Amino acid sequence: MDAQFELFRAQLDESSTLRDRIRAVVSEIESASRVATAALLLVHQPVPLADVLVKAKAQVEVIKGLYAQLAEVLKECPGQYYRFHGDWRTETHMVVSMLAFTHWLETGGLLMHAEAQEKLGLCSGEFGLNVEDYLTGLCFMSNEFPRFVVNRVTAGDYDCPKRVLGFLTDLHASFRMLNLRNDFLRKKFDGMKYDLRRVEEVYYDVKIRGLVPAELKQETQS
Amino acid sequence: MDAQFELFRAQLDESSTLRDRIRAVVSEIESASRVATAALLLVHQPVPLADVLVKAKAQVEVIKGLYAQLAEVLKECPGQYYRFHGDWRTETHMVVSMLAFTHWLETGGLLMHAEAQEKLGLCSGEFGLNVEDYLTGLCFMSNEFPRFVVNRVTAGDYDCPKRVLGFLTDLHASFRMLNLRNDFLRKKFDGMKYDLRRVEEVYYDVKIRGLVPAELKQETQS
Amino acid sequence: MDAQFELFRAQLDESSTLRDRIRAVVSEIESASRVATAALLLVHQPVPLADVLVKAKAQVEVIKGLYAQLAEVLKECPGQYYRFHGDWRTETHMVVSMLAFTHWLETGGLLMHAEAQEKLGLCSGEFGLNVEDYLTGLCFMSNEFPRFVVNRVTAGDYDCPKRVLGFLTDLHASFRMLNLRNDFLRKKFDGMKYDLRRVEEVYYDVKIRGLVPAELKQETQS
Amino acid sequence: MDAQFELFRAQLDESSTLRDRIRAVVSEIESASRVATAALLLVHQPVPLADVLVKAKAQVEVIKGLYAQLAEVLKECPGQYYRFHGDWRTETHMVVSMLAFTHWLETGGLLMHAEAQEKLGLCSGEFGLNVEDYLTGLCFMSNEFPRFVVNRVTAGDYDCPKRVLGFLTDLHASFRMLNLRNDFLRKKFDGMKYDLRRVEEVYYDVKIRGLVPAELKQETQS
Repeated sequence: MDAQFELFRAQLDESSTLRDRIRAVVSEIESASRVATAALLLVHQPVPLADVLVKAKAQVEVIKGLYAQLAEVLKECPGQYYRFHGDWRTETHMVVSMLAFTHWLETGGLLMHAEAQEKLGLCSGEFGLNVEDYLTGLCFMSNEFPRFVVNRVTAGDYDCPKRVLGFLTDLHASFRMLNLRNDFLRKKFDGMKYDLRRVEEVYYDVKIRGLVPAELKQETQS
Repeated sequence: MDAQFELFRAQLDESSTLRDRIRAVVSEIESASRVATAALLLVHQPVPLADVLVKAKAQVEVIKGLYAQLAEVLKECPGQYYRFHGDWRTETHMVVSMLAFTHWLETGGLLMHAEAQEKLGLCSGEFGLNVEDYLTGLCFMSNEFPRFVVNRVTAGDYDCPKRVLGFLTDLHASFRMLNLRNDFLRKKFDGMKYDLRRVEEVYYDVKIRGLVPAELKQETQS
Repeated sequence: MDAQFELFRAQLDESSTLRDRIRAVVSEIESASRVATAALLLVHQPVPLADVLVKAKAQVEVIKGLYAQLAEVLKECPGQYYRFHGDWRTETHMVVSMLAFTHWLETGGLLMHAEAQEKLGLCSGEFGLNVEDYLTGLCFMSNEFPRFVVNRVTAGDYDCPKRVLGFLTDLHASFRMLNLRNDFLRKKFDGMKYDLRRVEEVYYDVKIRGLVPAELKQETQS
Repeated sequence: MDAQFELFRAQLDESSTLRDRIRAVVSEIESASRVATAALLLVHQPVPLADVLVKAKAQVEVIKGLYAQLAEVLKECPGQYYRFHGDWRTETHMVVSMLAFTHWLETGGLLMHAEAQEKLGLCSGEFGLNVEDYLTGLCFMSNEFPRFVVNRVTAGDYDCPKRVLGFLTDLHASFRMLNLRNDFLRKKFDGMKYDLRRVEEVYYDVKIRGLVPAELKQETQS
């Protein structure tokens, strides 16, 4: 009995140490993600978009390096990705949300799963970006849009609601195709409906006040 | 965007189906484990021990077959043992508790981790018996002893408390060597202290009433 | 053993008495702070600002005197500021919130930590204004603004939302630089986001209704 | 505003770092205290008392060294003992309980506050052993006695209950002299009553069965 418990003691201590190392890297990911998100918050103010994006993207490189460190740590325990996955799940949601919002600000389109993986250097082998984490990150990104359209309209950008509405409507429709059995994800997705509704209201406000003069022309083009 | 979500849809449906298949097997494990535990409960009554053990051990063979089925299902998703682990964790605690109590009834000793694995056919490859699940199962087994010694003494078996006390004391001391950072396991271990105390009290009762005539001789030996 | 416990009895009674004296002063601080806050609430009504401020500032002098009394009591137990700190923490949050809001009404700017200390006479020696208490007070002040801008706009002051928004945006951005490990403070700061969002919505409302005619000129200046 | 928050950022990070260092030392105190307590648990088994005490006392030296490290860390922030006190309070209760039980096993008497301070090297200057922590530790020690007397009587030591009862009765009476306004301590003290009652019951059991033949003679001596 003693020999067995002595072995367990060593094993449990080893896995505690591993977890501590994982948490130390994850804590740095959280910190870099917080700095990137703070930089990105400047889109709500009259700051040139290019300046905002430069600051956020600098942190993305830092975060990519940290995920590489995490992958290095996890290489020591093959087949146990999901054992420790809960330790960086929340932080990964925040990172994906930030990346996807940055991508939308740049391109007006959706950051694809493969692109997110590539930006985080998570393409190869066992350590990838979990699909459900990617989707949850998109739900968090969606929460940014109501505030964004309000502030853009206030700053006189009356075209913004229409663009956001088109994007969110497509995203929401795509999510609806999925059979979400993950409770957390389904709940977050439910929240996207409210973001969509608020953006619709803002679009309605600018439309009803005649603040979108080129509207008919734009609609013909699209 | 559509192609990506179409792919996710297929992936999520596939993993839902997998989970349903896992849960179906786990439900059968739970059922067989319940039957075995119910059979084992007869040790609290004046039933011949051999009869009790035969019934419990018949279920162990069933359970072993079910774990083999589970391993077969998991072979389809290599490296994802810990992704689905939570789906059979609770049931495995019950199985280990039942196995370890059966083993103690037969031998008076502790069922080792390797023996538990072997009884469940979990020795090979990726699908083993998690150490923390094994330890949690032992804590649940410990909860059986207070009631067991009370009933054995009632049935006139005055030697039983001493044997159980020696076993539980050693098991408790072995656990104390471990640095338990798993909250669930630590809490379950805290409960073992009360089992130990209750068994001590029963032993005290039989001793103080002079019901252990051969005591002095035994103590000299130990 | 008796002598020791006799000594403890005296010590515990002494520290009970001390605590009672601290609580008596703190209760007066709470009372004066409540009067000041009640006076300040008149800014939500059409009352001249000067009248409101006079009443609030009269209480600040009272509160300053009470903190001096508190410091006097604490001089009797050097090095134990943090032992009793919890006894006046909540009241200090309310006082700082009231002071900072008063200051913003007067100047449109942030009451600095050093200024808050000076107004409360807490500059010297061991008894200062804890930084986390100061920051928590600012979070409480932030909660006043959504209601304030709504009432100012109702009263016809359409410039107010823009001024408040600029102030709150800067304050929020400053807080985001901090790595808040104090749970209570972090939670209070999380609430500031909703205040900010509500003020943005009010600003959006006045803007979209064309109630800020001088807007374009202001934006050019900023 | 920026300069002030930059300063706060530095201050908060500094105090986070300090807290992390404190917690690292406290975690080692907890670990050494756990080893000492595990060693002390052997008094419930037929192990020579001298062997048990040697092992426990070896850890006391380790713990003393760790408190010296803690004091060293706290020297960097004079006057803030009580700011961080909550971080080692629980561990100190365990340490005092273990020390006081060890002392009783050796001498049959109470470990005085000054002796506890000296064993932990906490005599000098600002960093002492808080009286309420000392008293709480004694309450935890009291919880060990019911189990101890049961096991001693089982092992044939029929004099033990009387000795423990005399000690606990005095300790309980001493506590009753105190006006306990600390809620946590008062609640722990309430538990001592149950320990006393259980020890009385065990004493009654041995007395009623005539297992204390030398009783009258002993009473005359005491």
